[in-house]
Amino acid sequence: MNQLCGTSSIVGCQFTLSPMSERYVDIILFALKEVNMSKVWSETDDVSTCIRGKQIHVFDVVRAIFLHAAKTGEHIAMSGTFSIGCPGDSAADVYMDESDIALNKDDTKEIDQLAGCKFALYPLGREDYMEKIYEQIDWSKETEVNVSHSHYATRLDGKVNDIFNLLQNVFDQTKQDVSHVTMTFTLSANSPTGKAKEVKVS
Amino acid sequence: MNQLCGTSSIVGCQFTLSPMSERYVDIILFALKEVNMSKVWSETDDVSTCIRGKQIHVFDVVRAIFLHAAKTGEHIAMSGTFSIGCPGDSAADVYMDESDIALNKDDTKEIDQLAGCKFALYPLGREDYMEKIYEQIDWSKETEVNVSHSHYATRLDGKVNDIFNLLQNVFDQTKQDVSHVTMTFTLSANSPTGKAKEVKVS
Ligand SMILES: [Ca+2]
Repeated sequence: MNQLCGTSSIVGCQFTLSPMSERYVDIILFALKEVNMSKVWSETDDVSTCIRGKQIHVFDVVRAIFLHAAKTGEHIAMSGTFSIGCPGDSAADVYMDESDIALNKDDTKEIDQLAGCKFALYPLGREDYMEKIYEQIDWSKETEVNVSHSHYATRLDGKVNDIFNLLQNVFDQTKQDVSHVTMTFTLSANSPTGKAKEVKVS
Repeated sequence: MNQLCGTSSIVGCQFTLSPMSERYVDIILFALKEVNMSKVWSETDDVSTCIRGKQIHVFDVVRAIFLHAAKTGEHIAMSGTFSIGCPGDSAADVYMDESDIALNKDDTKEIDQLAGCKFALYPLGREDYMEKIYEQIDWSKETEVNVSHSHYATRLDGKVNDIFNLLQNVFDQTKQDVSHVTMTFTLSANSPTGKAKEVKVS
């Protein structure tokens, strides 16, 4: 199998947006309609949506989709993976020529939405990957977001905009040293249980 | 930071189950109630559920939760990550002493549910990680499940039981060679769009 473009700087995010509501189709379509996606490549099927392009625009669009869905007040989950340097990814892409002006920032920066998030960072192909992970967790603790340990993940609690700033910084800092990085995340907003009421299921 | 138990054989799965329905709380509670979780450690909070124990029981329980949720007929998404050998994971756990008899197999093996799935395998700490991934993708094509390429993931279409058998085999085979493995997955069942009607959102 060909291993293409391990040094490509194209960033991708494959995610599933799940509004826990009968109106989930309307909410997903509403969120997508509210977001300006003209600077990214995108494709949606029955399992997930994939966004590809420059890092700044991929994060801008994913953040905006989550915020516009969450502002409906419904319980919204979003799980996905950010990737860069995937050897299977295609290199040439017109979307890499876009300018660095994020198109959705003005619309989303004032949305004051809280969320819980769990994320995990996977620097690939490196024996020192755990050092890279711990560096980023240590750095995360200096931010506005509440950072705690969870099984197989780091938990973040705070404003969605602060959480996305943190995720984007962690991803950006890691890719400086590591050519292939993936970062998984799950966000939850408007949960009726909330963080204060963690429950055991067994 | 201490790096504990890189050779621990405890398997974990952190996942988010999302029924796209007003009744999502009932559906989640129903699915959890239908599943025998006595051989695994589990914890649920507002973002996700974590299941830990022997590999056979972790896969058995996650599969059963998805199948019991999907048999309600509602559109169900489940996104998660299976892990083994995580240096932050705790070693000693009474659940590792359980026998290898899967408690939910009799209840779930006859549930004839179709789903779409995207998964990605991350063998960590290894420079030859892409070879391990390609070996497993090649092997997957020999199974009952329809395997296709997707951005940043491999797509599977088929019966949920066949999909979980494939995921468990991929994970099991990879861990023979690699001490720290994670595998992300997103499953979607009862989607009104289905695979035949892939749509572009932009
Ligand atoms: Ca309803």
